[in-house]
Amino acid sequence: MDLKQYIRIQEDFPKKGISFKDVSPLLSNPDAFQETIDEMKTIAEKWNPDIIVGPESRGFIFGAPLALAMNKGFLMARKPGKLPGETMKVSYSLEYGSDALEIPAYAVKKGTRILLVDDLLATGGTIRALEKLFTEAGAEVVGTITAIELTDLKGREVLHSPYESLIKYPH
Amino acid sequence: MDLKQYIRIQEDFPKKGISFKDVSPLLSNPDAFQETIDEMKTIAEKWNPDIIVGPESRGFIFGAPLALAMNKGFLMARKPGKLPGETMKVSYSLEYGSDALEIPAYAVKKGTRILLVDDLLATGGTIRALEKLFTEAGAEVVGTITAIELTDLKGREVLHSPYESLIKYPH
Repeated sequence: MDLKQYIRIQEDFPKKGISFKDVSPLLSNPDAFQETIDEMKTIAEKWNPDIIVGPESRGFIFGAPLALAMNKGFLMARKPGKLPGETMKVSYSLEYGSDALEIPAYAVKKGTRILLVDDLLATGGTIRALEKLFTEAGAEVVGTITAIELTDLKGREVLHSPYESLIKYPH
Repeated sequence: MDLKQYIRIQEDFPKKGISFKDVSPLLSNPDAFQETIDEMKTIAEKWNPDIIVGPESRGFIFGAPLALAMNKGFLMARKPGKLPGETMKVSYSLEYGSDALEIPAYAVKKGTRILLVDDLLATGGTIRALEKLFTEAGAEVVGTITAIELTDLKGREVLHSPYESLIKYPH
């Protein structure tokens, strides 16, 4: 199945010069969405993760079903201030703007094998920040999978752990 | 399985007097998370929905796996400004604060049977707003399921469509 046909391109969104990749049509087609999760699972299994992590909010859409498909736990990396209790936080810059993510301090044990899942890799800022956060927490990031990769932005070059994507665009 | 044992209570979060229900432990346990989706599916099947809708962002975590389990499309209801193209928008008040959600204008056809899924029902503001939005779009909201219900807040009384929850707390 050619998953790319289920991605809708919107030029100049959210600002001029950005070619936005909208996953809405993919999510609205159950076969395409299931194929996406199946392909992610095939990649993920060779890395043998303990926990699947998805950054808020589109990482939730791919990470949660992947965790269920692999019979592994799912962990939300949330925007600041949304998680109760003691948290660990990392700030990072985005393709446009900056942001931060938090995880519960209790969630990660030393040596836990972490798989990161998101909808899209652009400059790699979000995923590299999560790599740092989990490494500081004593965990091991065993790999990252995104549905879409913007290859010209060379995000994969900033990542320290293995990375694979399903659908590639130049930018 | 008693799903309630997988919910962590944090008093006075995000502000004094609020007893926050944290689904993180449930998501971290694959059997509990799968049981949650299975129970939601059993409820949802009797309403025969065409599309599963989850509001950003925790609605994504339950809505996306439920859509895959039912072989139905998933639709994101997103925070304002995040969806490209023409959108439909609704504003609403929350248990604490106010917010708005958008859906793509093209996403809903007349008569489409919509199932709404979220993590928690408090005062019902979010779900009632989505009921209005989809009704205005010509769709039919056939039901709503949330993992958690805060029964004392009587959110279910403001909803116009059938509603069921899996885990109940007074507030």
